[in-house]
Amino acid sequence: MSTTEPARKPRGRQFFANPGPTNIPDSVLLATAHQTVDFNDPNFIAVYEACVAGLKRVLKTQQEIFLYTGSGHAAWEASLVNLLSPGDRILILESGYFSLSWAAMAQDLGLAVQSVAADWRRGVDLAALREALAADKGHGIKAVCVVHNETATGMMIPLPEVRAALDATGHPALFLADTISSLGSLDFRMDEWGIDACVGGSQKGLMLPTGMSFTGVSAKGMAAHAASTLPKHYFNWTNMLKRPHRSFVGTIPVSLFYGLQESLRLIEQEEGLENVFARHTRLAKAVRAAVQHWSGNNGPQLFCLNPARYSDSVTAILMPEGYDADALRAVALQKFNLSLGGGLGPLGGKVFRIGHLGDLNEPMILGTLATVELAMKTAGVPHTPGGVQAAIEALA
Amino acid sequence: MSTTEPARKPRGRQFFANPGPTNIPDSVLLATAHQTVDFNDPNFIAVYEACVAGLKRVLKTQQEIFLYTGSGHAAWEASLVNLLSPGDRILILESGYFSLSWAAMAQDLGLAVQSVAADWRRGVDLAALREALAADKGHGIKAVCVVHNETATGMMIPLPEVRAALDATGHPALFLADTISSLGSLDFRMDEWGIDACVGGSQKGLMLPTGMSFTGVSAKGMAAHAASTLPKHYFNWTNMLKRPHRSFVGTIPVSLFYGLQESLRLIEQEEGLENVFARHTRLAKAVRAAVQHWSGNNGPQLFCLNPARYSDSVTAILMPEGYDADALRAVALQKFNLSLGGGLGPLGGKVFRIGHLGDLNEPMILGTLATVELAMKTAGVPHTPGGVQAAIEALA
Amino acid sequence: MSTTEPARKPRGRQFFANPGPTNIPDSVLLATAHQTVDFNDPNFIAVYEACVAGLKRVLKTQQEIFLYTGSGHAAWEASLVNLLSPGDRILILESGYFSLSWAAMAQDLGLAVQSVAADWRRGVDLAALREALAADKGHGIKAVCVVHNETATGMMIPLPEVRAALDATGHPALFLADTISSLGSLDFRMDEWGIDACVGGSQKGLMLPTGMSFTGVSAKGMAAHAASTLPKHYFNWTNMLKRPHRSFVGTIPVSLFYGLQESLRLIEQEEGLENVFARHTRLAKAVRAAVQHWSGNNGPQLFCLNPARYSDSVTAILMPEGYDADALRAVALQKFNLSLGGGLGPLGGKVFRIGHLGDLNEPMILGTLATVELAMKTAGVPHTPGGVQAAIEALA
Amino acid sequence: MSTTEPARKPRGRQFFANPGPTNIPDSVLLATAHQTVDFNDPNFIAVYEACVAGLKRVLKTQQEIFLYTGSGHAAWEASLVNLLSPGDRILILESGYFSLSWAAMAQDLGLAVQSVAADWRRGVDLAALREALAADKGHGIKAVCVVHNETATGMMIPLPEVRAALDATGHPALFLADTISSLGSLDFRMDEWGIDACVGGSQKGLMLPTGMSFTGVSAKGMAAHAASTLPKHYFNWTNMLKRPHRSFVGTIPVSLFYGLQESLRLIEQEEGLENVFARHTRLAKAVRAAVQHWSGNNGPQLFCLNPARYSDSVTAILMPEGYDADALRAVALQKFNLSLGGGLGPLGGKVFRIGHLGDLNEPMILGTLATVELAMKTAGVPHTPGGVQAAIEALA
Repeated sequence: MSTTEPARKPRGRQFFANPGPTNIPDSVLLATAHQTVDFNDPNFIAVYEACVAGLKRVLKTQQEIFLYTGSGHAAWEASLVNLLSPGDRILILESGYFSLSWAAMAQDLGLAVQSVAADWRRGVDLAALREALAADKGHGIKAVCVVHNETATGMMIPLPEVRAALDATGHPALFLADTISSLGSLDFRMDEWGIDACVGGSQKGLMLPTGMSFTGVSAKGMAAHAASTLPKHYFNWTNMLKRPHRSFVGTIPVSLFYGLQESLRLIEQEEGLENVFARHTRLAKAVRAAVQHWSGNNGPQLFCLNPARYSDSVTAILMPEGYDADALRAVALQKFNLSLGGGLGPLGGKVFRIGHLGDLNEPMILGTLATVELAMKTAGVPHTPGGVQAAIEALA
Repeated sequence: MSTTEPARKPRGRQFFANPGPTNIPDSVLLATAHQTVDFNDPNFIAVYEACVAGLKRVLKTQQEIFLYTGSGHAAWEASLVNLLSPGDRILILESGYFSLSWAAMAQDLGLAVQSVAADWRRGVDLAALREALAADKGHGIKAVCVVHNETATGMMIPLPEVRAALDATGHPALFLADTISSLGSLDFRMDEWGIDACVGGSQKGLMLPTGMSFTGVSAKGMAAHAASTLPKHYFNWTNMLKRPHRSFVGTIPVSLFYGLQESLRLIEQEEGLENVFARHTRLAKAVRAAVQHWSGNNGPQLFCLNPARYSDSVTAILMPEGYDADALRAVALQKFNLSLGGGLGPLGGKVFRIGHLGDLNEPMILGTLATVELAMKTAGVPHTPGGVQAAIEALA
Repeated sequence: MSTTEPARKPRGRQFFANPGPTNIPDSVLLATAHQTVDFNDPNFIAVYEACVAGLKRVLKTQQEIFLYTGSGHAAWEASLVNLLSPGDRILILESGYFSLSWAAMAQDLGLAVQSVAADWRRGVDLAALREALAADKGHGIKAVCVVHNETATGMMIPLPEVRAALDATGHPALFLADTISSLGSLDFRMDEWGIDACVGGSQKGLMLPTGMSFTGVSAKGMAAHAASTLPKHYFNWTNMLKRPHRSFVGTIPVSLFYGLQESLRLIEQEEGLENVFARHTRLAKAVRAAVQHWSGNNGPQLFCLNPARYSDSVTAILMPEGYDADALRAVALQKFNLSLGGGLGPLGGKVFRIGHLGDLNEPMILGTLATVELAMKTAGVPHTPGGVQAAIEALA
Repeated sequence: MSTTEPARKPRGRQFFANPGPTNIPDSVLLATAHQTVDFNDPNFIAVYEACVAGLKRVLKTQQEIFLYTGSGHAAWEASLVNLLSPGDRILILESGYFSLSWAAMAQDLGLAVQSVAADWRRGVDLAALREALAADKGHGIKAVCVVHNETATGMMIPLPEVRAALDATGHPALFLADTISSLGSLDFRMDEWGIDACVGGSQKGLMLPTGMSFTGVSAKGMAAHAASTLPKHYFNWTNMLKRPHRSFVGTIPVSLFYGLQESLRLIEQEEGLENVFARHTRLAKAVRAAVQHWSGNNGPQLFCLNPARYSDSVTAILMPEGYDADALRAVALQKFNLSLGGGLGPLGGKVFRIGHLGDLNEPMILGTLATVELAMKTAGVPHTPGGVQAAIEALA
C-alpha cells in the first residue's frame, strides 16, 4: 500500500486483528499515561519489584530475569550477545520469517548458524533435530534456538519435545526460546521445560505498548554468560546485576511498569493465567472454524496444515491462487477499519493473518470474522459464505 | 439482575450496544481528561465559542442555544420551565416510555398534559394530531411536544409532518422536539422545520460522557420565555443571557467542552455530518436485516411494525412469547461482555434494544449481531440462525 | 480581560490557584476517562454504592444523600425545591457573593428571603441571628441557610454556633448549609452539627471535574420534603427514591463515579480525612503569612479581618487603593501561567483570590506565592518583598 | 535510600526537578496513550514522517536520522557500533559521570579509549584537546566524543570550539556529540557545527516518556559506517535503510510517535524553538541566583565554577562539607513531594541537582527553589535564607 495515498478518515473503533502489537486494554493504556517519576523513588521501586515478581510467575521461572528498553529484537540480541562468543555455532529450528530473522541477526553478530529446515506449512520435524544433535559429537552447537510460536505462519513448536531431544541425545547446548507471541497467551513453562534463555516482549500477550523486552535466564545460562566474549554493553547482564534494579542499562522506562502492573492484575487477578490460556484456545478454534468453512469452493485456507501445531494466538490464512492478500487487507482497513496482519517475507501478498492474542473476547473475534467475510465479498475473493456462522457454532 | 451477585470479571473490550450513553471515541475520551481551567480564561473561551458555533451547525440553527450542566432530563425541564406558566396545557405525542416520562415531568411541574395516544408498535397517527389541534379552537394548547426518536421503541416521528399539522391548522402552539437520540445520528433541522425548542444531550450522537445538555430556542420561543412564569433559576435563560458565556448558571463543566471540540472535529471534519447520517442508515439496515432473519420460526422480531418510521439509531427487538429479554441480556453481558439495552416501562423483560448510534462501524455492528446470535443459542432462545449472514449481505 | 485578545501560548503546567474548580490529581483525571458503561451493570453498581457510602463518610452523615447531574447551583436549587413551598420564608446569613446568589435563587423560585446582614470583612454577627430567630415568634422562618465557607471572601462561618442559636431559641427551622468549598477541606459534620440539608459539589475538595452535586438530608429534612409543594421533577427526591439507585433523575454520569472512587481512595486511604484537614490548615497559614508580609508599605492585605473566621480553603486579598486586581491577574496568567481567582460582584477588580483547597502541597503553594510576588513586581503593585520567605518560615 | 522503608503517601502533584526524565505535558502524555495501530498503516506513516521531519528541524540537520526503541544508552551504543571497528581508538573529553560511562561502554565494545582529562568543576581545557589532536600524527583517533551538556555536573561544553579544534589541527576524526540533556533545551546545530553523529533521547527536552532514542548522522558518518566492522544488528543502520521506515529494527513504538507529534507541536508551533531556548536561559539564571544567594554563610554552592559553561538545563549544587545531599533530598521528597536529582558516581551524597529542562515555567521553578529552601531549613542545612527572593528578582 503506497504511503502517498490519501489517509482514510475512519470512524468507529479500529478493529485491530494484527498479531502484534496487540489491543491495549483501556485500564492498561491509562496506567501507562503516568507522569514521570524518578526510577530510584521508593514508591516506584515497589511497583518495579512487584512487576518483576509477576513477570517471573508468568514465565513460570524462579531464575534470573533481565529487562531492556527495547523491542523484542533487543531481547533476541541480548540473549545471543550475553551467552555466546564470536564464531560460536547455534542451531535454529526453521519455522518461518521470524526464525530466519533470528538467524540473520546471529550471523550479523558473528555467530555461525546451522538450521533444521522445515516445510513452513507442516512445521519442523523434531526427528531431524534429534539427528542433528546426535551428529554433533563434538558439541560444537552451543545453543538451540526455537521460536515457540511463529507469528508469521501461525504455528506452534512443542518446546517440551525440543527439550526431550536435547535430553535424549545428552547434548549440552543451551536451549533458547522466543516466547514473544506465546507468552501470556499459550502455556509456557520456563523452568519445567528446562529453557536456558527465553525472550519476551511487552506488546503481545502482556497487552502493553511496544518498548520493553526481557529475557529469563537459567543458572546454566548465567554460567555460560560468564564465559561469553561477544562485545556488549547496553545488553550486558553483568553490568545490570551491579545496578540497584539488577536490570537495565541507562534510564528505566517507568511508564511501562505502571502499565505492566495493571496488565499483571488483569491476567492474574481478574482472569487467572490458566483462564487466559483457555480463552485463547476457545477463540482460536472459532477462527479456524470460520476459515475452514470459507475454504470450500476454492476459498482461502489455513496456512498451517498440521493440526497438532495450530497456533492459538495467530492464524495465517492462505489466499486462493491469483488473489492478493494485501488488496483484501486494504479493503478491510480502508472500508471497514479492520486491521489485519500481512504475509511476511516470501508469504507477502499470499497470506493474511488474524491475530487473536491478548485482550480479546467473543464479540471482537466474531466482528473480525464477519468483517473479513464482508471484505471478501466486497473484494470478490471466492469463499463459501457462512464462516461466522461456523464460528458461532464453535463458540456455543 | 441482582446487584448482590458477584461482579463479572470480563476480558476484552466491552461491546456497548446500549442506545445511550454511547461509545466514546478514544480521542474524545482523552480530550475530556483535561486538567481544570478557569472558565473565564481566554484560551477556554475560544474553545467554548467554537463549540457553541459547532453545536448550532449540528442543530442546523442560527437562533439561541442554552447549555446546562445536567443530563437530558435537565434540558427537558429547562424547555418547560422557560417557556410555560403554571397550568398551561401542552400536547404530547405518545411514542413510548420517554414521551410518557416527559409528560410526567410536565405534570410534576404544574402543567396540564393532553396526549395524542398511539400504538407503540405503529407510531402516532398524525391525522389524530391534526384533529386535536383543529379541535383546540381557543388555542389552549401552548406547546406540542414530540420525541423525534423514541429510544425505548426504536421509532422515529417525522417532525416535518408535525410542523405541517401545526401550519395546516394555523395553530400557534410552540413546537418542542426532543432530539436526544437523534441529534448527530439522524437528520435534524431545527430552523427549517420550524422548531421552537429542541432538547439535546452530550451522551448520544455527540459521543461524550453524560453531563451536559442543551436547548436550541427560536425567536418565537424567546418571546414565549419572556411571558413564562413557572419558577426557575438554575435553568433560567434570562439569567444566562446576563452572563459572559450567555449560558449556564453556576460553574461551567469545562472538561466536556474539550471533548465536544474533538467530537465536533470528528463529526464535521473527519467524516462530515451528512456522511454520519448515511453511516447510521447503512448500519441500521444491517441490524434490521439480522433481526428479520432471526424472526422466522418464532424468533425475536422487530418491535416497530412501521417501516416508514424505523429508527436508524436504535432497534427494539421483541422476544418470542415466553422468553425473558433480561435473561438473554444477562447471558450476553456476563458470558460475552456485550451490553444490550433493556425494555423500559411496560416493555421490561419483553424487549431488548440494540443501540446503533454514535461511534460505530461495520465490525462493531457485526460483532454485536453475531454475539446476540451466540447468546440466543446459549440461552436457548428460538431463532433462525444466519442473522449475521443477512447483515453481511445488507452491508456488501 | 477581553475575549478577543489573542490567546496566550503558555508553557509549563498551568498553576491553578483558583478556588474552584480545583486541581484534579492525575489518577482521578484518568479514572474519569472511563469508557461508557450501562449504569445498571452490576460492576458499575458496586462502584456506585461504594461511592455513595464514601460520600456519607466525608459528610459525616448516616442519613440520606441525593445526587444530581449538575453543578453546585443545581444542588442549591434541589435543597430549596425539595424542602419548601411557594411563599415560604427563609433566613439567609449574609457572607458574600454566594450567600447573595443563593438568596436570589430562592427569590426566583418564589420564596421570601430574610437576611442577617453582615460586614463582609468581619463576618456575620451570630447574636443578630439569635435575635432574628427569637423575634420570629410565629416560626415563619422555615429554613436558615448558611454558606459554611464563603468562597468569594475567604471567610468561614462556624456552623456549630448557628446550630446553637437555633437550639437556644428553640426555633424549629430547617438548617441548610452550603459546604461546596469546605467539604473535604475543612472539618464538616452533618449529623453532629444537626444540619438538615447540606449542599456539596464534585469540583472542590473532592478534586473532580464539575458535573455532579449532591445534598445530604436529615430525617427532619425528609419529613419537610413530604410536605413541600414547590414544583420539581429533575431534582425531586421522591422520584429518586423510586429508582434502583435511589438517586438521580435520568442518566447517571458514570464517568464521575470512577473518578470519585479514586478521589475517595486518595482522601481516605492515602492521606486520611483528618490529615487532609490538617494539610489545608498548614498551607492556609503559609498563604496568610505571605499576604500579611506583603501588606506592609501599602501592599495588598487579607480581605478577612476576623482571624477566628479565616478560611483554610481560600484567601481573598484586597488590592491597595488604585490598583486593579484583574490587571495583576492578567499578568500572572499571561506571563507566568498562574491562574488566580478574581473578585466577585462588588469585589470585582478590588480583590483577587488564591484557592488553596484540594490537591495541593508545599511546592505548589510556595510556587503560587512566589509567582504572585513576581507578578506584583512586574505589574508595579506596591508590596513588601519577602512574602514567600514568610511562608517558608510558616511551613518550617 | 533503602527500598524497604514504607512508601510515602504524597499529596498534591509531585514536583519533578530531576534532570531527566523530565515533566511530560498533559497533552503529550495523553497523546502517548494511543491505542495500538499497525506501523505500516498509512495513517500512522503520515504521523511518523512528520515526526522524523520535525526531529531533523530540532537537530538542525538535513542529513540522516536513525531511531531506536531504547534509552539514550542505546543510541550511544548505536553511534559506536555503526561507526567503528574493533580496536579503533576514540578520544573522549572528560566532563563527568556520563562521559566516563560512554567511555566505559566503548571499552566494553572493544574500542580503545583516550581521554582528555578535566577538572569537573571547571570543565575540559580545549587547548588540551587541540594538543591531543595535534599529537595524533597518524590519525589513530577515529572519533572525538563529547557530551554537550553533562547532566551530572551541570556543565555545557561549547561544541563549536571542539569543531574548531578539529579544523585547526586538520584532524579527520569523526565528531560525536551527546545531546541528550541539551536537545530542545539549549541551542544545538548539527550541520552548522559539523557534527558527524549526535545522540538524543525522548525523555529530556522532547518531554516524552523514556523509550526512544536516535542518532543524527552526517554523510561523512555514513561513509565511516560503510567501513565499520563492529558486530551489530539491532542498531545496524544498513539494515534500517532497507526497511520502509528507513529506521528501527523490529517493532516500532507507535505510541511515542503520537506523543512526539504533540511535543513537536508544542515546541515549534506553540512556543517556537528559539523561545524555548530563551525560556531555559531565563529560568536557569533564576536557579543560579538562588543558589548563589544560599551559598553565603557556608551554604550550598554551584558545583560549576566556570560561568561560561553554566548549563541552562541542569544545575548541580554542592553541599556544605559534612552535610549529606541524599538526606536533604529525602526530606524534600518525603515531606514535600519534591523530587531532586542526586549526585552520580563520585559526587554521590555530595551534590544534588535541579533539572530545569523541558516543560517548566516560573511558578514551577520558584516552587522548586522555595521548597529546597524549606527542606534545607527543615533538615538543618546551613544557608543564607532568601534564595527565592533572589530568583524572583532575577526573573522580574
